[in-house]
Amino acid sequence: MPKKVRIALDAMGGDVGASVVIPGAAISLARHPDTEFLLFGDRALIEEQLAKHPAMNAVSQVVHTDVTVSMNDKPSQALRRGRRTSSMWLSIDAVKKGEADVAVSAGNTGALMAMARFHLHTLPGIDRPAIAAVWPTKRGDSVVLDLGATLGGDAQHLVALAVMGSAMASVLFNLDRPTVGLLNIGVEEIKGHEEIREAAEQLRAMNLAQLQYIGFVEGDGIAKGAADVIVTEGFSGNIALKAAEGTARQMAEILREAMSRTWRARIGYLFARDAFKALRDKLDPRKSNGGVLLGLQGVVVKSHGGADAEGFAYAVDVGYEMVHYDLLTKINQMLNRDGGAPLAPTTPEAVS
Amino acid sequence: MPKKVRIALDAMGGDVGASVVIPGAAISLARHPDTEFLLFGDRALIEEQLAKHPAMNAVSQVVHTDVTVSMNDKPSQALRRGRRTSSMWLSIDAVKKGEADVAVSAGNTGALMAMARFHLHTLPGIDRPAIAAVWPTKRGDSVVLDLGATLGGDAQHLVALAVMGSAMASVLFNLDRPTVGLLNIGVEEIKGHEEIREAAEQLRAMNLAQLQYIGFVEGDGIAKGAADVIVTEGFSGNIALKAAEGTARQMAEILREAMSRTWRARIGYLFARDAFKALRDKLDPRKSNGGVLLGLQGVVVKSHGGADAEGFAYAVDVGYEMVHYDLLTKINQMLNRDGGAPLAPTTPEAVS
Repeated sequence: MPKKVRIALDAMGGDVGASVVIPGAAISLARHPDTEFLLFGDRALIEEQLAKHPAMNAVSQVVHTDVTVSMNDKPSQALRRGRRTSSMWLSIDAVKKGEADVAVSAGNTGALMAMARFHLHTLPGIDRPAIAAVWPTKRGDSVVLDLGATLGGDAQHLVALAVMGSAMASVLFNLDRPTVGLLNIGVEEIKGHEEIREAAEQLRAMNLAQLQYIGFVEGDGIAKGAADVIVTEGFSGNIALKAAEGTARQMAEILREAMSRTWRARIGYLFARDAFKALRDKLDPRKSNGGVLLGLQGVVVKSHGGADAEGFAYAVDVGYEMVHYDLLTKINQMLNRDGGAPLAPTTPEAVS
Repeated sequence: MPKKVRIALDAMGGDVGASVVIPGAAISLARHPDTEFLLFGDRALIEEQLAKHPAMNAVSQVVHTDVTVSMNDKPSQALRRGRRTSSMWLSIDAVKKGEADVAVSAGNTGALMAMARFHLHTLPGIDRPAIAAVWPTKRGDSVVLDLGATLGGDAQHLVALAVMGSAMASVLFNLDRPTVGLLNIGVEEIKGHEEIREAAEQLRAMNLAQLQYIGFVEGDGIAKGAADVIVTEGFSGNIALKAAEGTARQMAEILREAMSRTWRARIGYLFARDAFKALRDKLDPRKSNGGVLLGLQGVVVKSHGGADAEGFAYAVDVGYEMVHYDLLTKINQMLNRDGGAPLAPTTPEAVS
C-alpha cells in the first residue's frame, strides 16, 4: 500500500478557524483520499466540526492546545507567546519531527514565516525564505515568487528564488526546464535596480539545466504568462499580487452591476448564465489560494486568512501536491545539482 | 478674451507618431476649443495630417525638425543625440521658454524624463521627479504615483510625492484636503521598508493642511479607492500599474471568449450589448492615459507609446486640465505653504 500524505493543520488559523479549516480539509480529502490529518487546536471546536464530516473524522488525529497565534501578533510576539504551545507552532513541529509531511495554516503570515524559519531552518545555500503561489495566466498557470516573505535582497537571493520557483513549477506543471523571467519595469537590459540586472547576468551566465532564463518581464507580462516562473523580491511581489486581485474584484463588481441595471441586460444575463459561470470559475480567486513557503527544510503552506472552506481546500490541495510530487527533494536536487554551489559559481563565498 | 491653453506636442513621439498625435489632439481640441498647439517634428508628415483636420490646422503652428528620439534610446543617448534638435526636446524647450504651457509626448519615457529634468530642472525642495496618473477605482478616481520615474527613495522623497500627488488630486478632483495613503504590504504599522514607516511617521507628525494622511494601503486598496492619492516609489508603482493593466486585459479577453462560445451566450450578448458597452467604456484603459511628470519647473505629460488617437486625446486632455487649473502654482503653493520648508519640519537640512 502506498504511503499516505500526512498533513498537519493549524485548525485555529485564519479569520474563522476550525469551522473553515475542517470543512475545507474535508473537500480536499474527497479529492485526495490518500490523505491523513493531524489537527492542532481547541479539541472541543475541532470535534464539533469532525462530527459533521465523518470521512474527515476517520483519517484525523486531534492534538489539543488552547494557545492560538492572533492575526495581529507581531512575528516576535508570536514566537515568544506561541512557541512550543500554539496550534501554528505544533503543526510546524509535526513537520520537523517527521510526523507530518506538510503543515497548512491560514494564520498570521509573518508569524508563520518566523516560526517556520526558526524551527525548520532554511535549506543549505538559502539565506532567506520566500512565499510562492500559482497565478492563473492567459497561457495557463505560472509560479510567482516572492509574495512577501522577504523584502528586498541581492542578486544572489533573486537567483535562489529562480531556482526554487523552477523546482515548484517543474513539480506542479510537469516541466523539465521551466522558463523564468525577472519582474522589472521594462524589458530593456538597462532597466531596474542593480541587483535585478546582476541577477539577470548571473542567470544567463549560469545557463542552468533546470531552468531557462528568458529575460525581464513587466507587470503586465505576468497575466500574459510570459514565463512559467516570475521572480521578484517580496515587496513588489506582494504589491503585484494584490493590485491584480483588487483589479479582478473591481471588474467583477462592475460587470455584476452592469448586468443587473437594465431589463435587457438582465435578460442577456439569463441567456449567457453558463458563460458567466465559466468566467467566474476561471477567475475564482479561491483557486489560487495556497502560498508555499520555499527555502525551508520542510514544506509549509499558507492559506489566505479570509478563505472560506472551498478556498482553504485549495490550499490543502497545494500542500498535498507538494508532498505527493516531492517538492523538497526536487528543490534540494536543483540547489545541489552539479555538486555543490550552483547558485554562486562566480562568488561562492556569498552562499556559505 | 481669456488666455488660451498652449500645448506643445512631440508630433513624432510614440510607436506611430504624427498619424496618432494629430488626430488625437484634434479630438481633445473638440472637447477644449480654447487650445492652441505647437507641433514639433517632420513638417511633411505633420502637414499631411493637418490637412485632414482643418480645426486643428487653424490653431496649430508647425516647427520642423528631422531629429527624433527613438523608443529604444537610452536616456543618456537621447540627451546626447537629441538635445536642442529632437521633437521631444523642442516641445520641452517650448515650455521652458514660456511659448507653451505644457508639453505632451508619447515618446520614450526614460528619455522624456531625462530631458525634462535636465532642461526644466526640479522644483525647489524636490530632488527627484515622479510620474503620476489617474487610476479609476470603485469609489471614483485616485492619483497614483510614482509610476516609474524614480526607483527607490527615502522617507523625504515619499513625503514629497504625497504633497505633489495631493496638489494634483486637488486640481483634478476639486478637493480641499485629499486623503493620502502609502502603498505597503500590510496595513499594520510594523510592515514594510523602514523608509515607508518613517514617511508615515513624518506625514502623521506634520499633519499638513493640504492633505490628510490615512495610513498604509495594500495593493488591492488602490482599486477600492482607499485614498485619493496613493504614494509609492517608482519600481513598485510601475509594477502595480502594469499588473493591474495585465489583469484587466486578461479578464476582458476571457469575457469576450466566454460570450462568443455558445449560441446562448451570443444571444445573451446581444441583449446585454449596452451593458457591455458601458462596461467597456468604464474600463477603457485609454481613459487613464496621460502620466504627469511632477516635481519639475514646468508641466510635461507622458502618453502611452502604444496609444491610439482616442487614447492620445486623453493625454492631451490631462495636459489641458493641468494648465487650466494651474497645477504648477498649486504644487508650488503646497510645497511652500507655511513659509518655506514644509517637507522637512524636523530635518530641514534634508531639503536644501
